[in-house]
Amino acid sequence: MKNSTFSDLSFSLDMPEWAADALGALPSHLPTPEARMAAVIEFSRQNFLRNTGGPFAAGVFERDSGRLVVIGVNRVMPFNCSSAHAEIMALSLAQKMLGTYDLGAEGVPAHELVVNWRPCAMCLGAVLWSGVRSLVIAGSGPELEDITGFDEGPVSEQWRTELERRGISLTDNVLKNEAIAAYREFTALQKTVYNARQGK
Amino acid sequence: MKNSTFSDLSFSLDMPEWAADALGALPSHLPTPEARMAAVIEFSRQNFLRNTGGPFAAGVFERDSGRLVVIGVNRVMPFNCSSAHAEIMALSLAQKMLGTYDLGAEGVPAHELVVNWRPCAMCLGAVLWSGVRSLVIAGSGPELEDITGFDEGPVSEQWRTELERRGISLTDNVLKNEAIAAYREFTALQKTVYNARQGK
Repeated sequence: MKNSTFSDLSFSLDMPEWAADALGALPSHLPTPEARMAAVIEFSRQNFLRNTGGPFAAGVFERDSGRLVVIGVNRVMPFNCSSAHAEIMALSLAQKMLGTYDLGAEGVPAHELVVNWRPCAMCLGAVLWSGVRSLVIAGSGPELEDITGFDEGPVSEQWRTELERRGISLTDNVLKNEAIAAYREFTALQKTVYNARQGK
Repeated sequence: MKNSTFSDLSFSLDMPEWAADALGALPSHLPTPEARMAAVIEFSRQNFLRNTGGPFAAGVFERDSGRLVVIGVNRVMPFNCSSAHAEIMALSLAQKMLGTYDLGAEGVPAHELVVNWRPCAMCLGAVLWSGVRSLVIAGSGPELEDITGFDEGPVSEQWRTELERRGISLTDNVLKNEAIAAYREFTALQKTVYNARQGK
């Protein structure tokens, strides 16, 4: 018996319809970490309020100029794709837009990823491979898991050192209270955390 | 100054043209770990020999029946996407084919991921979120990094325990010598390792 049903070996991921307008409504440049994070948190809120994914967003910016490249949101459930975390969406879209798999390549301005909490085990790896030179997060403590039940996975205890070793600067605790408030808002709406394995 | 250029917020990843025929030529079921790994290693070879990506492949199978769901290969360079590792390709394609982001959901047969080495930091995370119940790898030692120069990233020292804790069984050292031979073949061809950051 042979397989003959491999006619479609592609998959596509995209942002929700509201995102194009929301991105277009933002200033072209967001100069401060707080301004970048505020935009990211608002995208995370819109994503769960509009039922287009989980409460996570990630933005790619030019580190020094603050130019907004793109903000991605979690798309796991809409696309039946467990890897469609916000960071993967944002980094993949930015790399496609810029035509490089290395956002830190020679000739490319340094890029920064801004996320509304410490990336999960998978996404911390994705950050390392993306070429970004700077990671800005709203927090890194247990609050996210405590509030939402989300499983971050086994992150290397040396994660800060591993970022630094690869030339990626880390800024933590940017708009932490605002990020936590959004997670509480999500939980209060009794949204299901999408990424917990459902089976036994 | 406002942004108005967010007209395309999607990205697509697909397998090389040769893969559909190569998958169709395989038996529908591969009952043993060795048979599954041999197919995966051959896909990894074809991928670099045909210049369609890096020397990595990953296959999703039904764990017990051995039914072949799909084999993915690394597509980082062709798609300018640093997350397009073989495991992400295979898991995302399998989830799309099966219509679920959880390959371990109730009512879905247990699935296994077969990879031609221990997954990198990012992909180990992806394995956890995918719902697969079984991970089969060709090896987990320093040979891959030593031979190819590939950076695996900071994997939690408790990675075996973390898999086990989530109900994912691990089988290591399946066709290890054959996998190593393929990496040596890749290196002898002086292929560039795609995933090392190029910039300073």
